[in-house]
Amino acid sequence: MPFDPFDWIDAEARRRADAGLVRTLRPRPAASGLLDLASNDYLGLTRHPDVTAAAAGAARRWGAGATGSRLVTGSTALHAELEEALAEFCGFEAALVLSSGYAANLAALTALTGHGSLIVSDAGNHASIVDGCRLSRAATAVVAHADPEAVRKALRSHEGRALAVTDSVFSVDGDAAPLPGLADACRTEGAALLVDDAHGLGVLGEGGRGALDAAGLAGGEGIVTTLTLSKSLGSQGGAVLGPARVIEHLVNAARTFIFDTGLAPAAAGAALESLRLLRREPERAGRARTVATALYERLTAAGLTAVRPDAAVVSVRAPSADAAVRWAAECRAAGILVGCFRPPSVPDGVSRLRLTARADLTEEQIATAVSVLRRTAPVS
Amino acid sequence: MPFDPFDWIDAEARRRADAGLVRTLRPRPAASGLLDLASNDYLGLTRHPDVTAAAAGAARRWGAGATGSRLVTGSTALHAELEEALAEFCGFEAALVLSSGYAANLAALTALTGHGSLIVSDAGNHASIVDGCRLSRAATAVVAHADPEAVRKALRSHEGRALAVTDSVFSVDGDAAPLPGLADACRTEGAALLVDDAHGLGVLGEGGRGALDAAGLAGGEGIVTTLTLSKSLGSQGGAVLGPARVIEHLVNAARTFIFDTGLAPAAAGAALESLRLLRREPERAGRARTVATALYERLTAAGLTAVRPDAAVVSVRAPSADAAVRWAAECRAAGILVGCFRPPSVPDGVSRLRLTARADLTEEQIATAVSVLRRTAPVS
Ligand SMILES: Cc1ncc(COP(=O)(O)O)c(C=O)c1O
Ligand SMILES: Cc1ncc(COP(=O)(O)O)c(C=O)c1O
Repeated sequence: MPFDPFDWIDAEARRRADAGLVRTLRPRPAASGLLDLASNDYLGLTRHPDVTAAAAGAARRWGAGATGSRLVTGSTALHAELEEALAEFCGFEAALVLSSGYAANLAALTALTGHGSLIVSDAGNHASIVDGCRLSRAATAVVAHADPEAVRKALRSHEGRALAVTDSVFSVDGDAAPLPGLADACRTEGAALLVDDAHGLGVLGEGGRGALDAAGLAGGEGIVTTLTLSKSLGSQGGAVLGPARVIEHLVNAARTFIFDTGLAPAAAGAALESLRLLRREPERAGRARTVATALYERLTAAGLTAVRPDAAVVSVRAPSADAAVRWAAECRAAGILVGCFRPPSVPDGVSRLRLTARADLTEEQIATAVSVLRRTAPVS
Repeated sequence: MPFDPFDWIDAEARRRADAGLVRTLRPRPAASGLLDLASNDYLGLTRHPDVTAAAAGAARRWGAGATGSRLVTGSTALHAELEEALAEFCGFEAALVLSSGYAANLAALTALTGHGSLIVSDAGNHASIVDGCRLSRAATAVVAHADPEAVRKALRSHEGRALAVTDSVFSVDGDAAPLPGLADACRTEGAALLVDDAHGLGVLGEGGRGALDAAGLAGGEGIVTTLTLSKSLGSQGGAVLGPARVIEHLVNAARTFIFDTGLAPAAAGAALESLRLLRREPERAGRARTVATALYERLTAAGLTAVRPDAAVVSVRAPSADAAVRWAAECRAAGILVGCFRPPSVPDGVSRLRLTARADLTEEQIATAVSVLRRTAPVS
């Protein structure tokens, strides 16, 4: 037999092709001319001149990389400044910056649980949370979507350490988690609550302070939140925010923090500048929400099936994976870039287009987008 | 009982304090004046003006962030160019760039294995490999350090898909994996070989093309390698290199690729420029090795116990965790920054100082470093 340890890959590739589920990369040019309704740049900051200048300045001042683990040479004063700014802005005691939001979720879930503890996880949670649960030594109970009573019941069935985890805004459908109910269930059951605010930061709460600020839960005793710097803040990286003792614990125990190179200075500098911009221009957060609502209302008025957005993500149903792919391709041909989510990237097997509102979209751009989506919609 | 889901954290903190194992962050200023023998900036490129200018230029041209998953809006022509350059430089068919080396290892290990498959992992492998094994659905056999026969035996005991995984250069002690023996064991047993070349790229092989180039194994049929852009290339990010079909499979199956925001353009631009520099100045790789050997020989001549370096990491034993911490502190007081590794960051419980050679260290700096290390050495 000839040596081929990867022959099974060809079989999987054929299966994917037969199912119409092949993904390919489509590198974009620096200026594509397309109207972007697909990125997570909710506030339109990733190309803001102040933000790119801060990235450039940080690279020149601090170097292109952090050069080591945050515990060895990878912590600069810039990282410390960013951590202070994130904690202050979001209303938490302390913050820890990691190289991605993915790494932040893995860090929090593995370091705050362990053998004998229980994680209660919403069925719609992000892949990085699912992986964090798998990587932890805890037992995981996956509960019904957005259901505080299901969380309470799962917590009640367990003796010992427990933590409930949820996206604040679910990444595919853009609906919000019932945070007050979840916090109450956790408080009465003695469990910690971990909220991934990847899609809430910059969009929800006072001036974009996030979903926990909006719910009056920021800085709460048993509450920890994970953030990404790669969406509203237009950069790269992630963070965990919570009580100081929790953050100190992560410094000592979170493997994706300890054994990973620190975030590049350019990314830290850009995120810090975005936070400053949010303070100077707090109206950006509300504008992103307004644009999302406008998109939703006009698409619905046009007869499309969309989910009412709780933040800046607007999800529109497609009748099938194939139809979703064709629809997205026709939008692109008409100059509009939209996200296309289909199995295995959707929790429920339902394919959809995912549109993101941006604070800097004009009325005209919104109108164009709605008109193109409507014109290209598949007949279901 | 008052609500405190984190009371156990205080107990763990006390345990750590009693054991003298508390880690704290020590943010550094932009110019510390210390002689750096602790970072992984093996070629001295992270502050090279061409590299920081490339980072700055990429941020200005492409934005501060990639704005989405590589499968949605996060792939730029810059990412594609970097992937081509990495594959060509290292001698592989294709490459995929991720947001960190950690994510690259998780991606390769989870997507190239699965239920019913076996991973054979060296006992000294990096934490990100250990986590990748845990996250995969495969069974994992941890085998003796640097022992191809142990790998062969483990592979032989298994029917079905299998993969052996190793660091090319072990991160703590700087010793090299027996790649030819491992490749032979994998070939005869029909298994894939995954080599994490985090500490080999830029240091080993012709002009720094890495450990697989050095072993004549680059581009081999059943061989996949993971890289980090955060060490010799002075930036941030990671990559998986291998046959094109393997890379296509990862695009479709690797969760830490699919569900993570693309690498920030500044980091991609910096890594690309570092690769160009390595082509222009191939002597940097050899110089890093020469410096490492010089450090090792002089430290050994001074009576210290060090591991003969196979790349650019020089590991020096300390009699205890406490002694290692004190030694590192005294070095710092004398102007030399060294790494201090102790439990739980060492596989064998032995604490050591970890010195890194840099291609840009001068003879005088090497002499100073040796003299300080010798003067401050604990009496064992
Ligand atoms: C809900 C959620 N959490 C975490 C992440 C991961 O963040 P990052 O891309 O910064 O790694 C994402 C998206 O990428 C997300 O949508
Ligand atoms: C052997 C090895 N693999 C992987 C990594 C992770 O790479 P990164 O820091 O780019 O995530 C590291 C160090 O951080 C390492 O030493």
